Amino acid sequence: MGSMMWGCVTDFFTYETTKSVVVKSWSVGIINRVVQLVIISYFVGWVFIHEKAYQVTENSVESSVMTKVKGFGYQNNYVMDVADYVIPQQGAAIFCILTKVIITENQFQGTCPEYSEKYSCVQDKDCLQHIGDLFSNGVITGVCLNSTIGNETVGRCESEGWCPAENDHVEVKPMLNVINFTIFIKNSVRFPLFDVTRGNFLSTMSRDEIRKCNYHPVDSPFCPIFSVGDILNYTNQDLATLANKGGEIGINIQWKCNLDYVIENCVPRYSFTRLDKPFEKNAISNGYNFRFAKYYMTENGTEFRTLHKAYAIRFDVMVTGKAGKFDTIPTLINLVAAFTSVGLGTVLCDIILLNCLKGAEQYKAKKFEEVSDAQIEASLAHSPVSQLSLKGGIKSSYDSGAISLATSDQAM
Amino acid sequence: MGSMMWGCVTDFFTYETTKSVVVKSWSVGIINRVVQLVIISYFVGWVFIHEKAYQVTENSVESSVMTKVKGFGYQNNYVMDVADYVIPQQGAAIFCILTKVIITENQFQGTCPEYSEKYSCVQDKDCLQHIGDLFSNGVITGVCLNSTIGNETVGRCESEGWCPAENDHVEVKPMLNVINFTIFIKNSVRFPLFDVTRGNFLSTMSRDEIRKCNYHPVDSPFCPIFSVGDILNYTNQDLATLANKGGEIGINIQWKCNLDYVIENCVPRYSFTRLDKPFEKNAISNGYNFRFAKYYMTENGTEFRTLHKAYAIRFDVMVTGKAGKFDTIPTLINLVAAFTSVGLGTVLCDIILLNCLKGAEQYKAKKFEEVSDAQIEASLAHSPVSQLSLKGGIKSSYDSGAISLATSDQAM
Amino acid sequence: MGSMMWGCVTDFFTYETTKSVVVKSWSVGIINRVVQLVIISYFVGWVFIHEKAYQVTENSVESSVMTKVKGFGYQNNYVMDVADYVIPQQGAAIFCILTKVIITENQFQGTCPEYSEKYSCVQDKDCLQHIGDLFSNGVITGVCLNSTIGNETVGRCESEGWCPAENDHVEVKPMLNVINFTIFIKNSVRFPLFDVTRGNFLSTMSRDEIRKCNYHPVDSPFCPIFSVGDILNYTNQDLATLANKGGEIGINIQWKCNLDYVIENCVPRYSFTRLDKPFEKNAISNGYNFRFAKYYMTENGTEFRTLHKAYAIRFDVMVTGKAGKFDTIPTLINLVAAFTSVGLGTVLCDIILLNCLKGAEQYKAKKFEEVSDAQIEASLAHSPVSQLSLKGGIKSSYDSGAISLATSDQAM
Repeated sequence: MGSMMWGCVTDFFTYETTKSVVVKSWSVGIINRVVQLVIISYFVGWVFIHEKAYQVTENSVESSVMTKVKGFGYQNNYVMDVADYVIPQQGAAIFCILTKVIITENQFQGTCPEYSEKYSCVQDKDCLQHIGDLFSNGVITGVCLNSTIGNETVGRCESEGWCPAENDHVEVKPMLNVINFTIFIKNSVRFPLFDVTRGNFLSTMSRDEIRKCNYHPVDSPFCPIFSVGDILNYTNQDLATLANKGGEIGINIQWKCNLDYVIENCVPRYSFTRLDKPFEKNAISNGYNFRFAKYYMTENGTEFRTLHKAYAIRFDVMVTGKAGKFDTIPTLINLVAAFTSVGLGTVLCDIILLNCLKGAEQYKAKKFEEVSDAQIEASLAHSPVSQLSLKGGIKSSYDSGAISLATSDQAM
Repeated sequence: MGSMMWGCVTDFFTYETTKSVVVKSWSVGIINRVVQLVIISYFVGWVFIHEKAYQVTENSVESSVMTKVKGFGYQNNYVMDVADYVIPQQGAAIFCILTKVIITENQFQGTCPEYSEKYSCVQDKDCLQHIGDLFSNGVITGVCLNSTIGNETVGRCESEGWCPAENDHVEVKPMLNVINFTIFIKNSVRFPLFDVTRGNFLSTMSRDEIRKCNYHPVDSPFCPIFSVGDILNYTNQDLATLANKGGEIGINIQWKCNLDYVIENCVPRYSFTRLDKPFEKNAISNGYNFRFAKYYMTENGTEFRTLHKAYAIRFDVMVTGKAGKFDTIPTLINLVAAFTSVGLGTVLCDIILLNCLKGAEQYKAKKFEEVSDAQIEASLAHSPVSQLSLKGGIKSSYDSGAISLATSDQAM
Repeated sequence: MGSMMWGCVTDFFTYETTKSVVVKSWSVGIINRVVQLVIISYFVGWVFIHEKAYQVTENSVESSVMTKVKGFGYQNNYVMDVADYVIPQQGAAIFCILTKVIITENQFQGTCPEYSEKYSCVQDKDCLQHIGDLFSNGVITGVCLNSTIGNETVGRCESEGWCPAENDHVEVKPMLNVINFTIFIKNSVRFPLFDVTRGNFLSTMSRDEIRKCNYHPVDSPFCPIFSVGDILNYTNQDLATLANKGGEIGINIQWKCNLDYVIENCVPRYSFTRLDKPFEKNAISNGYNFRFAKYYMTENGTEFRTLHKAYAIRFDVMVTGKAGKFDTIPTLINLVAAFTSVGLGTVLCDIILLNCLKGAEQYKAKKFEEVSDAQIEASLAHSPVSQLSLKGGIKSSYDSGAISLATSDQAM
């Protein structure tokens, strides 16, 4: 019993290695080494050095953006400042600078004729088709009214809502001064996986340096102050068109950090795009505009409002981040893949050796040993004794069941 | 010296391949090939074709969303238009459509009795417990006042702040017209890794096509105009309840792009969910409401306000994107995994061959060659000469040190 | 012809396994098993159990956040409530609580002297340098005016815009009551890959439980109501400084879900950070402030405004999520990597066996079989017959072309 246990233990602590055929042939030898070299170069050069496959990467970044616009512009004979032209005002990552505002003053609740020619009518029944219309200035009542537009008296369908109706076809000069505005962007990011926090300007910059600098991709890549004019240049936009129609500009802050190096190299890179580019061929929704109202009250408590149709340049500050740091898991997986791939070279060499070389048959004879059902059966039939002797001699040379699985892995 | 160098070189350019035993047995042969077939099918069918393991995928997408609502509704005998019921007004990705507004007019700073019965009192000391209360309409002063509610005179604690206090238990009819409103969504996305930009409607759509279309999952899946009524249907929401209590609806735009195909197949897919679903069982915070105020000034310069408690349907346009494109690294890793897995079939076949088949012992004798410490020691002791001769004959058949590592990889 | 086909079929259904050398040596056997044990432990313990390499993970989460602030504060002798001090008012994920407001009342469009000493002047030409300045209160006209500041009459450059100019150097007491405010956060997340939706508080919590609870990391980790005072404590912020200068606080909600377990374990974890920390050393942009205006109209229709320079604590509720669930692909890849890595142990053992052990030469003789070009050529030259006989005997022992590739994989 004890000796059987001991036998198992000795069986377990054996080492199984594959029997190899060493082919001393220049042709196959050189092919073999060249293939290995190519595979190793690929993994070292591309997978590990270029693609940094030894790193675990994090793509999701926690980001906080604060913006502040400075500058003055003229619109409708008013000087507009930040509180007037930035919406929303709280310095968010997405903000609009109003560049053209069509104002409809003193709107009261009531009924009045529509303005647009689309709603022209002679009798009430001309207006029935417009009931439920969404593009009117109010709820179409189905009544035809006389309306004075310029010096003419024309028929227009009546609508209920804020009156008088807006006329958004008036010519208003856009606020071209927007080109001189500056945008200050404060961005802090955090990679939660690595617990690394970074800000978009250096802590060594003094108050004056920041106030006076102006972002430039080469000369001043870390200055957090951007001139609107520069941004329009970077995105190849025409100021007049953009200010007149509105548009969406993306300010992308890209953090690409290799945390295996010093943290100071983890810096932002800015890029600028026109976001509504995919739609530039569409006639509709060219540009960007929205409506808002300022509400007032008369002495006797009636509410009235000033409707603003605002054309704006919308800036979306978008932050993307990617950080990588050495980690054992991807390193291991890729190392194993590399080693295994090196082994794949054998497949190619085997094909050459066993099929193309002179003396292929001899190589086959050396590499392959054959055993067939017939042989086994013959040996079982003729020499039951030899089987026994085999058993005694061989018994300890193999692993049973579970262990076999582990040792066979060596062949993988 | 030179010949030693030459010996090293010839040693290096050898090719080492494993010596194999070829078993010509139907049973193991068939099992072997079936196992290989299963593994290959799995990798080809599932891993490569279905899961596209040959692609590098990008999950983070840069997205810009612009929205525009159209429609008119009645609330408190007013006709409300976009400028009145959309908050915030600038067409953001997250916007609210007010559906019910409880208005408290002409609030001035001062002191007044609370409205809610919770703050009823007989003497001042009844109010002391409420000091610091956060659910009141102002700062509780600790004084008990007489208040006229309806025709009754009741005791209510005094609070300091905007007066009179809000009574948010009044019945206000929600704005059911919201069902006819339409939402226009302009979404452009960019996959930074692949530098691919896409918009959510085709550049071939004309202004009229876009204006007249209405999103339908089957008939019109790329129309960017959504009826609020349809959205409520898709999410199985009851208009009356939602308009009365408010709620949050998610409009999800999913971009799932296979960039190995033509870019035109990279299109959005819309889905709609009720976002506050996880909370529907909670009594509190059912729905969605918030307070805001409009500020006015009297002739003599005193500020007063109209408080609005607004119940709203909040729409969150959420964009998720995933793009995949062929890349060598994942392809290689998965190919290597596939090949290696095919090799794993050997493990199973070895177990069968060496344990279950008739003649297993013979197979073992063929597969395994044994060498033990005892044998080695015996040969070392008895024939030091033969060792020498061995040395001469074998010397060139192995690699030394570092090279051995490289050649042994072939066995992996 | 038929027998040739049959020969191919029998050739195909063979099984090829590597011939192995079993070394019955205690030293190498033990090393072999120990190396295998280390590798297996690493994969089981670290890769699979700790890093959960058997799971597919999703990092992008769809999230919806609703917030509600409660509390009253004093500012400029006003009682401020939610409608006054929260911007934007609609309960967004990013919101500001105003803590100090510098008010400039009754601003009309016109021209007036600047306030700041920076714009002091004696004659007009002193003002020319300031034309185009962005830090002024309006457009600098280049004229020098007399201005009464306090009791003194001083020279100040004229600017055009909203007048009178803002004096933001006045001392205003910040609203310290902010410490008692509470923030209610409703967050629902969805992992699109797994279609799992979760809310940040339990559906079993009653209305009263939620109303009365107060978040505490240990005692009450799932309460959705946060005291501003607590948040300042968690982030080590000084109330007086923060309320005076403004600042940005991040409320991070982290969802880390193992979806192989019951869904109830998928709960949020809150953490709090000062977001503008990377900038704390910079003199500029310490804190957080922005300007907004309330617009009024005089009886005769002239617009005027009250400018607010608001210092605020901005709260960014940021949601990050990560969910993992068992998936065959990563499991397979990592299993294969594990098995292959176990095989890598052979490399080490081979080096020891063939170089360091006593009897290394004998082991080499056993492991390696040599075949050289010279031998092959000799055998080809001397016994063309034996080659033929070999052909007959060996022919069926190898696979041709394509099949060889498949069978050779077993060696990988």
